[in-house]
Amino acid sequence: MVKALEGLSDTDGFALLDLQDAKVLRENGWQGPILILEGLFTQDDVFEALELRCDCVVHELNQVDWLESAMDARQVPQSAHAASMRVFLKMNTGMNRLGLKPDIYREAFHRLHSIGFNVAHMTHFANADYVDRTPTVDQQLELFQATIKGLPGETSLSNSASILWHHNNVQCDWVRPGIMLYGASPSGKYEDIEHAQLQAAISLRTKIIGIQHLEAGDSIGYGSRYRTDVPIRIAVIACGYADGYPRHAPDGTPVWIAGKGGLADGKICPMAGQVSMDMITVDVTDMPSADIGTEVELWGQHLPVDRVAQASGTIGYELLCAIAPRVKRI
Amino acid sequence: MVKALEGLSDTDGFALLDLQDAKVLRENGWQGPILILEGLFTQDDVFEALELRCDCVVHELNQVDWLESAMDARQVPQSAHAASMRVFLKMNTGMNRLGLKPDIYREAFHRLHSIGFNVAHMTHFANADYVDRTPTVDQQLELFQATIKGLPGETSLSNSASILWHHNNVQCDWVRPGIMLYGASPSGKYEDIEHAQLQAAISLRTKIIGIQHLEAGDSIGYGSRYRTDVPIRIAVIACGYADGYPRHAPDGTPVWIAGKGGLADGKICPMAGQVSMDMITVDVTDMPSADIGTEVELWGQHLPVDRVAQASGTIGYELLCAIAPRVKRI
Repeated sequence: MVKALEGLSDTDGFALLDLQDAKVLRENGWQGPILILEGLFTQDDVFEALELRCDCVVHELNQVDWLESAMDARQVPQSAHAASMRVFLKMNTGMNRLGLKPDIYREAFHRLHSIGFNVAHMTHFANADYVDRTPTVDQQLELFQATIKGLPGETSLSNSASILWHHNNVQCDWVRPGIMLYGASPSGKYEDIEHAQLQAAISLRTKIIGIQHLEAGDSIGYGSRYRTDVPIRIAVIACGYADGYPRHAPDGTPVWIAGKGGLADGKICPMAGQVSMDMITVDVTDMPSADIGTEVELWGQHLPVDRVAQASGTIGYELLCAIAPRVKRI
Repeated sequence: MVKALEGLSDTDGFALLDLQDAKVLRENGWQGPILILEGLFTQDDVFEALELRCDCVVHELNQVDWLESAMDARQVPQSAHAASMRVFLKMNTGMNRLGLKPDIYREAFHRLHSIGFNVAHMTHFANADYVDRTPTVDQQLELFQATIKGLPGETSLSNSASILWHHNNVQCDWVRPGIMLYGASPSGKYEDIEHAQLQAAISLRTKIIGIQHLEAGDSIGYGSRYRTDVPIRIAVIACGYADGYPRHAPDGTPVWIAGKGGLADGKICPMAGQVSMDMITVDVTDMPSADIGTEVELWGQHLPVDRVAQASGTIGYELLCAIAPRVKRI
């Protein structure tokens, strides 16, 4: 959190899940807005959120009740406290995950507004990274705008996909970039962001710890999934699914192996064999300099995380989230 | 580590990856054997391993060199120190991941043995959880036994799959149970261990944080992957891929929802819609009591982790390893 604060210190605000993380930001000097993105989980959280000067998403009626009761219960001047908290009232416009349906949205808005909260309007797009699925961004946007018509308040709409691919039609006061901050694609396809001038913010690196020379007919690893018809040279690399590397990565998943001149002189070599708990195996026949101790980039500066995610049937976000505590952060 | 030590205090020994973890075990009073399972990564590790009284796997010739040099370099009586460390010399009998090939195995054995190390013989099975893949357990075992013929030393062979399904033919001094300690199946199929009297050692639990009522034609979540033909009731559950839940879990993946009498009174409800970063969505139409605050077990005592893994195309081990630091341990 401290490193993220340093790196993103000129943001207009942070959005988080946990009040504990908000506390860390405050303790490290962050004075700007902090939004609790999934809202509060209990009534007691209201007081902690107020003390930490956090803004809150409200996505269900219980949370409206809590805010009302909390304002009743406090002995301090209500208006001052309510006004100091921005409430992002979340509308379910078709994502059907969190949020109030349009038919009860305006009533919730008026309840919060009348207490004195600074209420902003929020929704979330289900298909901003698809061109062929409904509800479309435009359909959700239309429902959103029709529902808030005439109400005061700022708006928060776009996630990374909408920022990248719908910025012409989706206008709002706040945006919520997530995955794009890491230089990865919301769609999971690197091609989709290749020209967006995003850079990899995380590189996952390790080293070769073993070399095996295989003969024609030999196989590798659990289930003997990869079998070779010709002699090949296999590098055993110290990173496995217990480090967060995706176990379902198939043979051929790209791995960046350093060359004689280091990582910048490297190239892609194909995974060969099932990912193990603590190791992966890669065919380095085409990189003769690869040996024990050679540096490896699993994703990052030289190899977009999206390439690995795409090979593994997921998106970069899952891989970036999955990096295990035992991996040393530098 | 401290909890694992408490729970497994009557084991014959621990096997670990990191010397740091070995240090934690020693600091907490563990006096028995500790095996560094991937061996040492640098020559300096030799001295730390000796100080911590760790045993080491040796899987490549560099590691033999390091042990030789370390014994030369030390001013203390060599024999005492070498004899205090058990070296598990790893043979590659067809897994083709780590280990010395049989043609160089005996020479490495004699080098280590002559320094005074207590050398044990080790290999690892590639297909102990398959019946139709080569090399088979028997083929690997035959090569192993032929190679060590006439050499002194204990043996370490079986992983969980071999302990469960090959205990009649694989005899050895040490076994290396991993996944079975957690009550999960090496094959990823719960049916394979259903009668083995293993119990789930970990339960992953959370709560419902939202309810959505869907009409016919409505869809849920990113990509609108799940679409309903009839009115249904959806629970939004606070756990997503950033907590370690597998993002590739498809619609229908089982989730255990508590009933009126709590978790013991619960039942399986099907996932509906793409796993999000911090949430999943489940069809709770058949569990009318499910509401905000209702307890949910994602896997564990009531729902084998293998069921979730199988639905998601992986094995329980990946899911158990993937639980994120932000998930509270109890």
